Amino acid sequence: MVERRPFVSLATDFGAAYTAICAGVVYSIAPAANVLVLSDEITPYGVREGAMLLRQALPYLPVGVHVGIVDPGVGTPRLPVAIETGRGDVLVGPDNGLLVPAAAKLGGAVRTHALENPAYRLPEVSTSFHGRDVFSPAAAHIASGVAVADLGAPVDPQPLDVPPPSVSGGELTAPVLYTDRFGSLVLGAERTDLAAAFGELAPGAPLEVTWSGAASGTLRVTFEETFGGVAPGTPLLWIDSSGWLGLAVNQGSARETFGLADVRSLTLRTAAGRVAGD
Amino acid sequence: MVERRPFVSLATDFGAAYTAICAGVVYSIAPAANVLVLSDEITPYGVREGAMLLRQALPYLPVGVHVGIVDPGVGTPRLPVAIETGRGDVLVGPDNGLLVPAAAKLGGAVRTHALENPAYRLPEVSTSFHGRDVFSPAAAHIASGVAVADLGAPVDPQPLDVPPPSVSGGELTAPVLYTDRFGSLVLGAERTDLAAAFGELAPGAPLEVTWSGAASGTLRVTFEETFGGVAPGTPLLWIDSSGWLGLAVNQGSARETFGLADVRSLTLRTAAGRVAGD
Amino acid sequence: MVERRPFVSLATDFGAAYTAICAGVVYSIAPAANVLVLSDEITPYGVREGAMLLRQALPYLPVGVHVGIVDPGVGTPRLPVAIETGRGDVLVGPDNGLLVPAAAKLGGAVRTHALENPAYRLPEVSTSFHGRDVFSPAAAHIASGVAVADLGAPVDPQPLDVPPPSVSGGELTAPVLYTDRFGSLVLGAERTDLAAAFGELAPGAPLEVTWSGAASGTLRVTFEETFGGVAPGTPLLWIDSSGWLGLAVNQGSARETFGLADVRSLTLRTAAGRVAGD
Repeated sequence: MVERRPFVSLATDFGAAYTAICAGVVYSIAPAANVLVLSDEITPYGVREGAMLLRQALPYLPVGVHVGIVDPGVGTPRLPVAIETGRGDVLVGPDNGLLVPAAAKLGGAVRTHALENPAYRLPEVSTSFHGRDVFSPAAAHIASGVAVADLGAPVDPQPLDVPPPSVSGGELTAPVLYTDRFGSLVLGAERTDLAAAFGELAPGAPLEVTWSGAASGTLRVTFEETFGGVAPGTPLLWIDSSGWLGLAVNQGSARETFGLADVRSLTLRTAAGRVAGD
Repeated sequence: MVERRPFVSLATDFGAAYTAICAGVVYSIAPAANVLVLSDEITPYGVREGAMLLRQALPYLPVGVHVGIVDPGVGTPRLPVAIETGRGDVLVGPDNGLLVPAAAKLGGAVRTHALENPAYRLPEVSTSFHGRDVFSPAAAHIASGVAVADLGAPVDPQPLDVPPPSVSGGELTAPVLYTDRFGSLVLGAERTDLAAAFGELAPGAPLEVTWSGAASGTLRVTFEETFGGVAPGTPLLWIDSSGWLGLAVNQGSARETFGLADVRSLTLRTAAGRVAGD
Repeated sequence: MVERRPFVSLATDFGAAYTAICAGVVYSIAPAANVLVLSDEITPYGVREGAMLLRQALPYLPVGVHVGIVDPGVGTPRLPVAIETGRGDVLVGPDNGLLVPAAAKLGGAVRTHALENPAYRLPEVSTSFHGRDVFSPAAAHIASGVAVADLGAPVDPQPLDVPPPSVSGGELTAPVLYTDRFGSLVLGAERTDLAAAFGELAPGAPLEVTWSGAASGTLRVTFEETFGGVAPGTPLLWIDSSGWLGLAVNQGSARETFGLADVRSLTLRTAAGRVAGD
């Protein structure tokens, strides 16, 4: 017999302790729940990074209630919402675009309601910790069977603000979505964007990467199907496991090696000749 | 039917792996337990920070067995103890004051016993990892139904050593309890202490903050009810979700912005005139 | 009645989010499982550190399926494997020696099979995230009752490459296995190696520690049974809770205090006279 436990996940920029307090609130209201901390280490205020994480991760999690909280607007009038998806999940978090790309991956948003009903909040709501007082109680009550429509009025969710990649004159310019913990830059462009700019690239195809801003630079790299395609310490472009184009250094940090901490977009073009070290 | 699982939480300064080993010991002894890691990233040896975390978090967790371990005295003769609370929890950890403020929040300490009974320790007790060998087995046995009084002799728990805030001559001086992961300083003073020094403060009221020591400085800030009351990058004083006064920077780090890493107390006084940028 | 949940642990160098995705895959396939993240913060590519963690931790976890992933070779032809142990556990991970010392601690490897059967992988296998697509599904299916022999062909696991300690002329030279989060260096030598070089050491016995390489240095320390044997800020040699010799600083960091970040081995010899500060 397979035990049925309502599944709840939490993804926040709160760190371990405050995220665990949210888990404690869920367990207090829904003792049978199975709570998974998806992340407690999203970069503080990194709405775009959080949105990409939820979009990437949730399809691999069981159908359930998924709380996402990256909320620079806590204490201001932005709405807390719950989005029911085509797959049957309910996504709970602030209405700042964080949940929207994930909802699209999970069969689309079927309905979205504001979290207004005081019956599904903690008795006392603080001004700064809505994760504990608003989002987690709502998630626990939904996991216990409360219908999304009972939480509050229907609303239209705000979209996530991400610039699209641009292709022109044999160049691809893509926004940096976030930097992962290995120091690899994940770009808002997919294999189809790469093909639109350069056609199908064979492993080892050389490309030139440039960036500008506070610091500017140029780098010659190869496109690879796997990290193992280049020697340790060597940079590469590759498609990550969620389909994004990325700039990495095999067994190293692209951000540290090339000083890319504050770079907001990269431009790729075909490199004539050979890459350094060939 | 709601499943009944004994609830166990763990809060340590051990990092992920050693804390998970403690969870593994609990599961080995009490397989039905529901173990939540409340924190594995308390600042090493930060007894005061750990005590404030437990005091803040435990009221939001289910009634259960809560292990707290920040233990600079491991390997010396300080006692391991279990404190039963009025709410029905049992707090397990070293007798160095870590558990005492949380016990007070949970209905007070009903009884405290030393962890002496070898039946409730691992067969072999190391000199340096009592979390694994002493505290976690005790917690698991209590979660499985062992009475606190069966663990060892009754003892009087040691109080936590925290300096109180002081108010005099229109000034409030408060100890820095800890710095949170956003770089906000959490002070050992509450709204009532603020009112004792300055009367009721309206949002936007200007205050001057000074500190001294290895580095010294002065800062003009406003008291706010929410982070959203000031622009990103701007400092503020506010009351955090557990009732402490704090110094923060909206969407930034007060510690980094003002060089406050080693500051042990802050003094606040009324600021004449307007804050910079008004 | 004790609830029976198949136990699965995860130890990776992926960080919180990618490790939680692996947990989500396990829960999706094996909803009754009890998943414990043993670590998500192994030093990236630290195969030796991960191997020592598994060897130290797994004996304290319930019998179950234990996934270990530190995999510099992802995307290259190294095999994914499952090792069944004498205790009844199954260890799942790359065939690079990571799992072998732990298997030896758990009653030895009874059988090892490659993870080849596509029925026990996700339908689509990426080139860079075998944790999600290969290792976690295999672990979940094993936790659900699939036999290790059904996963693929039997193989001989690769051993872990660790240099042994050497004793000669009253000196003990030992490799640095890893540095823990407190900055203590954990050495590949045990109490018996120490005794082979110096006989039985009483607490307080003085030793000289030397290292060379990019930086070189000499340090006089005492051997102690507990951290409490020396004052805060003072270095010591001790046997850690898993039996390894270590160099630490009481309430401090040996790595930072003595600049040992890149040191790969330490040599110990008997110190004449007294240590500094006696």
